[in-house]
Amino acid sequence: MRNILVLGAGKSSYHLIQYLLDNATSQNWHVTVADASLENVIEKTNNHPSSTAVQFDINNDDQRIFEIGKADIVISLLPPAFHYVAALECLNQNKNLVTASYVSEQMKQLSAEVSKKGLIFLNECGLDPGIDHMSAMEIIDDLKEKGAKITGFKSYTGGLIAPESNDNPWGYKFTWNPKNVILAGQGTARYLKDGNYKYTPYSRLFQETEKIKIDGLDVLDGYANRDSVSYKTIYNLTDIPSLLRGTLRYNGFCGAWNIFVQLGLTDDAYKIENSSSLTYAALVRSLLPVNTGNIKNDLKSFVPNANQDDLDRVFWTGICEEKAIPLINASPADILLHLLSEKWMLQKNDIDLVAMQHIISYQLNQLNYTVKSSLIVKGQNQTATAMSKTVGLPLAIAAKNILNATVNASGVLIPINKDIYNPILKELEKFHISFVNETFSS
Amino acid sequence: MRNILVLGAGKSSYHLIQYLLDNATSQNWHVTVADASLENVIEKTNNHPSSTAVQFDINNDDQRIFEIGKADIVISLLPPAFHYVAALECLNQNKNLVTASYVSEQMKQLSAEVSKKGLIFLNECGLDPGIDHMSAMEIIDDLKEKGAKITGFKSYTGGLIAPESNDNPWGYKFTWNPKNVILAGQGTARYLKDGNYKYTPYSRLFQETEKIKIDGLDVLDGYANRDSVSYKTIYNLTDIPSLLRGTLRYNGFCGAWNIFVQLGLTDDAYKIENSSSLTYAALVRSLLPVNTGNIKNDLKSFVPNANQDDLDRVFWTGICEEKAIPLINASPADILLHLLSEKWMLQKNDIDLVAMQHIISYQLNQLNYTVKSSLIVKGQNQTATAMSKTVGLPLAIAAKNILNATVNASGVLIPINKDIYNPILKELEKFHISFVNETFSS
Repeated sequence: MRNILVLGAGKSSYHLIQYLLDNATSQNWHVTVADASLENVIEKTNNHPSSTAVQFDINNDDQRIFEIGKADIVISLLPPAFHYVAALECLNQNKNLVTASYVSEQMKQLSAEVSKKGLIFLNECGLDPGIDHMSAMEIIDDLKEKGAKITGFKSYTGGLIAPESNDNPWGYKFTWNPKNVILAGQGTARYLKDGNYKYTPYSRLFQETEKIKIDGLDVLDGYANRDSVSYKTIYNLTDIPSLLRGTLRYNGFCGAWNIFVQLGLTDDAYKIENSSSLTYAALVRSLLPVNTGNIKNDLKSFVPNANQDDLDRVFWTGICEEKAIPLINASPADILLHLLSEKWMLQKNDIDLVAMQHIISYQLNQLNYTVKSSLIVKGQNQTATAMSKTVGLPLAIAAKNILNATVNASGVLIPINKDIYNPILKELEKFHISFVNETFSS
Repeated sequence: MRNILVLGAGKSSYHLIQYLLDNATSQNWHVTVADASLENVIEKTNNHPSSTAVQFDINNDDQRIFEIGKADIVISLLPPAFHYVAALECLNQNKNLVTASYVSEQMKQLSAEVSKKGLIFLNECGLDPGIDHMSAMEIIDDLKEKGAKITGFKSYTGGLIAPESNDNPWGYKFTWNPKNVILAGQGTARYLKDGNYKYTPYSRLFQETEKIKIDGLDVLDGYANRDSVSYKTIYNLTDIPSLLRGTLRYNGFCGAWNIFVQLGLTDDAYKIENSSSLTYAALVRSLLPVNTGNIKNDLKSFVPNANQDDLDRVFWTGICEEKAIPLINASPADILLHLLSEKWMLQKNDIDLVAMQHIISYQLNQLNYTVKSSLIVKGQNQTATAMSKTVGLPLAIAAKNILNATVNASGVLIPINKDIYNPILKELEKFHISFVNETFSS
């Protein structure tokens, strides 16, 4: 009997836990699911005989030591800030660890010790980061084996809503950490274009988008993620002139979101002192340079280049209405989050959708080609989301492969080596997570 | 014999040290001037018999303890981050302290202890903050004594260049910490207008300016300082509906500076990895969304609403030229600073100018009035600047008054009480630092 400890039973845990329980008998697993909310856990484990539900606090030393001590492998879905605490305990007690989060500086520092003990801490093994790395590296490795020279790499991912459930003008609902959606892109984006570094400050990020077309979906807009340049080394694309990783939204979202950005409504750096005595409209007036008494006209004058559809999206949220803000001393970002949490809530029968596209240019035998590799995954309902499926299944499969000792590696890793990504991608295909590739001469 | 210790002999120390040495004999003072650069000190003290020059490192414990131990009062012109170290030592050794910097959170925490020991740590006693507080409070206190109700307060200050030395299209040269000029305004400005809080994010700060007219000067633009709202309490203007403190620049500066802001050239939060292998033009291309090969046209398209004069100001700096950036791994802000340090350097015979204007609205006997109180101070040359005079003299006079025990107060203070500001303002008039007041019915 092997023990698997899952830390976190939130939004993205459904398919992960499902996979582990479905395979528990055949794989001889016992699955312990631990979360601050026992209700969250029971909803997902449903008292399955191979499961144990635990109300859990990662900062409770005794509990952390005890639960990790019993496990053969730990899968952490905790908020990124808590992975390190779990990692230290795994290192102490010689346990392997899998996460879907970016490798933090702290985590990276553990690599030598993790390696010395022959352990694997596999991170960035969800959707984005995760499937994006694996599917990109599969194409890159394949092209390199054929002798191709890769001249351009773009990769976009989006957690979206399926067309049949798209019943709001933004084409968006929350299927992922809502606060992260509000704060997405803050800082300066960095990517490579035609051999040069390019920088896009946050204030321009949602204006400088690229149109992306994926068969079966309406036109999408892509905006650049924070730092694409570091993937030059990670993907072993050392001399590549153009490299960009980004995020997808349905066309219209970015233009309207840009109005929030220009207003300052996504700012989380300061508090609105008297927020609980304001209406949403009063907050907008506080942020608008001119107040004539007609807030909608004032907003329109504030962004003279915005189109009416984008303005209508903003008005649709209720941000210009005289409705009280029920938050005390909240940041603009928190207030916007509160408003959108209701407006963009995934309903019981809503179907979400995950879209990904790599656009890779290369030279082979003196000819230029572009391959577009696209993925669309649809969810089933509010709980069994495409987001949960594409985040959870790679984690679960990776954990299985590590437990079965078919992964021949150690250290703090991400799934960019063939030995790791190949069996995961193969198994994901059985779950209809598979890419469609089209190659064009260019 | 009373000993005065001056920490810092940089740009703004000239008039401070001059005043102390001019009064040393009559006041029975010995003046020790301490700076990291002994050259800086000697340039200012000129081996005056009442002076001692010390090469000084505030972080050298022995030296700090020794020099502060000998002093009867300490005047700190150190960068704001170092005031606290000096303050702790002053507290330890029961010495009074004067600075021209904003009271930090740390400094504020010391107030009870400082008070208990009967000491005075007088901060914000230079120009801005300093003369602005004192002159504003003089008017506010006077109006209140007359029974007036103050309905609006605006106060703008600028360190500028005199018209006769204004030989560049920006109407600006560095007379103050250049890096602070580059970073000025980052964050979100907060002020009061017609009873409401107003917020201006940095990305809009240099667009949302107000025209200010001071007799004898060309039209000025004022932009809001970081947090004006806190002065509601500090100035005891509890119910005031409109309150703003801001910074003045000659008309034209803000529009052109806004182009730098929109490009992202004032960002100090990240490094340009390969900066030493780039030209200034290449950096601008990295920040521009579109590169057609004609950088000036691309910049023009990037800011379609900018006028040609503003674009010409930007071109004048050389930022679009193919000249190598001599800085390794520098932030955009550092690169811009380097470029402007040469272009905006105050020349030997340049005359700088300090301008300030308070615009205070009030009701008295059912009538509405506005008083405009304006100050213009001109410098003499590169060293004896108006900036150094208006920062240094209030500090020196405050130190004298504290030494002569004519200040009846204790704690961590700023000069908003009549007992403190009145004798300082009176003496400043002898140095032609005096305001012109005009009152209008409104």
